[in-house]
Amino acid sequence: MSSLGKLDRQMQELRSRVDAALDAYTNFAGGCPDHLREAIRYSLLAPGKRLRPLLVLWACEACRGDLAAALPAACAVEMIHTYSLIHDDLPAMDDDNLRRGQPTCHKQFGEGIAILAGDALLALAFEVLSEDIEPADRAAVCCGVLAHAAGATELVGGQADDLAGEFFCGGLDVLESIHRRKTGAMFCAALQLGAISAGASDGERQMLDAYGKNLGLAFQIVDDLLDVNGDAAELGKNTGKDAGRGKLTFPGLFGVDESRRRAESLVVAACGAIQPLGPHAASLECLARYVLERKH
Amino acid sequence: MSSLGKLDRQMQELRSRVDAALDAYTNFAGGCPDHLREAIRYSLLAPGKRLRPLLVLWACEACRGDLAAALPAACAVEMIHTYSLIHDDLPAMDDDNLRRGQPTCHKQFGEGIAILAGDALLALAFEVLSEDIEPADRAAVCCGVLAHAAGATELVGGQADDLAGEFFCGGLDVLESIHRRKTGAMFCAALQLGAISAGASDGERQMLDAYGKNLGLAFQIVDDLLDVNGDAAELGKNTGKDAGRGKLTFPGLFGVDESRRRAESLVVAACGAIQPLGPHAASLECLARYVLERKH
Repeated sequence: MSSLGKLDRQMQELRSRVDAALDAYTNFAGGCPDHLREAIRYSLLAPGKRLRPLLVLWACEACRGDLAAALPAACAVEMIHTYSLIHDDLPAMDDDNLRRGQPTCHKQFGEGIAILAGDALLALAFEVLSEDIEPADRAAVCCGVLAHAAGATELVGGQADDLAGEFFCGGLDVLESIHRRKTGAMFCAALQLGAISAGASDGERQMLDAYGKNLGLAFQIVDDLLDVNGDAAELGKNTGKDAGRGKLTFPGLFGVDESRRRAESLVVAACGAIQPLGPHAASLECLARYVLERKH
Repeated sequence: MSSLGKLDRQMQELRSRVDAALDAYTNFAGGCPDHLREAIRYSLLAPGKRLRPLLVLWACEACRGDLAAALPAACAVEMIHTYSLIHDDLPAMDDDNLRRGQPTCHKQFGEGIAILAGDALLALAFEVLSEDIEPADRAAVCCGVLAHAAGATELVGGQADDLAGEFFCGGLDVLESIHRRKTGAMFCAALQLGAISAGASDGERQMLDAYGKNLGLAFQIVDDLLDVNGDAAELGKNTGKDAGRGKLTFPGLFGVDESRRRAESLVVAACGAIQPLGPHAASLECLARYVLERKH
């Protein structure tokens, strides 16, 4: 079996573990109205790549930690990611109607409940971390790292610049700055949470940070390429929106071939950064190649 | 000087300390777009009662803690409160145009930025708790308590029921259930955060919880009464909306006089619950009377 074939099987197995945990976390005791629970689970449990949870779990493995110890963090990161998708899809933001192969949350449940479902997922992520990451000092560090990555200078800041039309001004600096905050920050936070759950050293955490920065940018270049060449049905979201509107993209700046070459060398740099971690980091290396080869 | 006069002076002094800390927490390093920073500060630093931060600080005092140790928690609770006001005021929710005496966040900055400003405040609350409450195990407990109170079974759940029109069905049970989640849960969380910052015992935390539950309901009855009798300019928000729409309220169910009596006996019960804490809880007792007498 090829290493990517083996990776595929491992990914499926871990996705199932993450999905089962996400399911359990969103049953909710009394007090949660049915329509809110339904909207949260509709968006959170829809089929997704679960790339960020995999980053958490494999960063934990790379630092010789126990995967089970990082599972709550993997769920927390997916909750933040899903909340950001729900809010970014709203009419006042990107106004999208298709996500993960189904109508967006506000199309299905209305804008008000979509806003609240996102809010609830954002809060739940911190409840999960603070209650299920052990010991408590690691939980507090995880909360701090995730809150910073989700906040005004990172995820929300990048989205605010996107909303203000910054993708239609400037050049490479602007493009990379928005993607670093909208995508890269959460990739890096996922890796840090996995590392913290494993009790990693500062040196190990720095290697994973370099891996995450390179991988985040590579992921975004591939995203832009898929928007040009990809298939909407396979992607589960609309394509071809960017070029038509004159939006700043990597293929728009460099052409398809040069963008592809840039993504490839970023993945090489990502893998180089974690080489000192040895064979425990093999899954993260395979994942970097998967990010490059992915079709959705 | 009357005890309420003395309380007024103390409240002003503590509000100034909270406001200075909120100001410092929202300067943000690079990465936060100017318009996002402006929207966050516009809503967060607008003149408010700062009732929830006062609950945090005085719960800390009641448990013989140092006020400075609870200041980050006081700020975190105000951030959650402000985020919930911003999102509740959105057109897809309550569609309000006046808050804290000024146009609502979305009226001033647009819906997209208002949604993001709320999101950023929600994340920031957990960043502040996890980084500035010490030691780390107390920070983790604070994050868990606040996240639960802000989540799908409490604050967001109450708002989802409100949005679904539950205030127009049922009777006292429904009315109290929504208010317990929309208001009471955050009052109780504020008190718990103050107690945790002080290293309080389980017994002390239970007394504060009983105080918070009674006070939260009293606060909401007074809110309903102010909606009938209050002055929009003094309140800084619109009045008379509820009765006109047939919305379930305490004066609607019991009349003005009986509602007033109920609020009074809830305040008596609140003060009774914390009596064993002795003179350190004097400020919380005065605050309960203030909640009853407030004009805005």
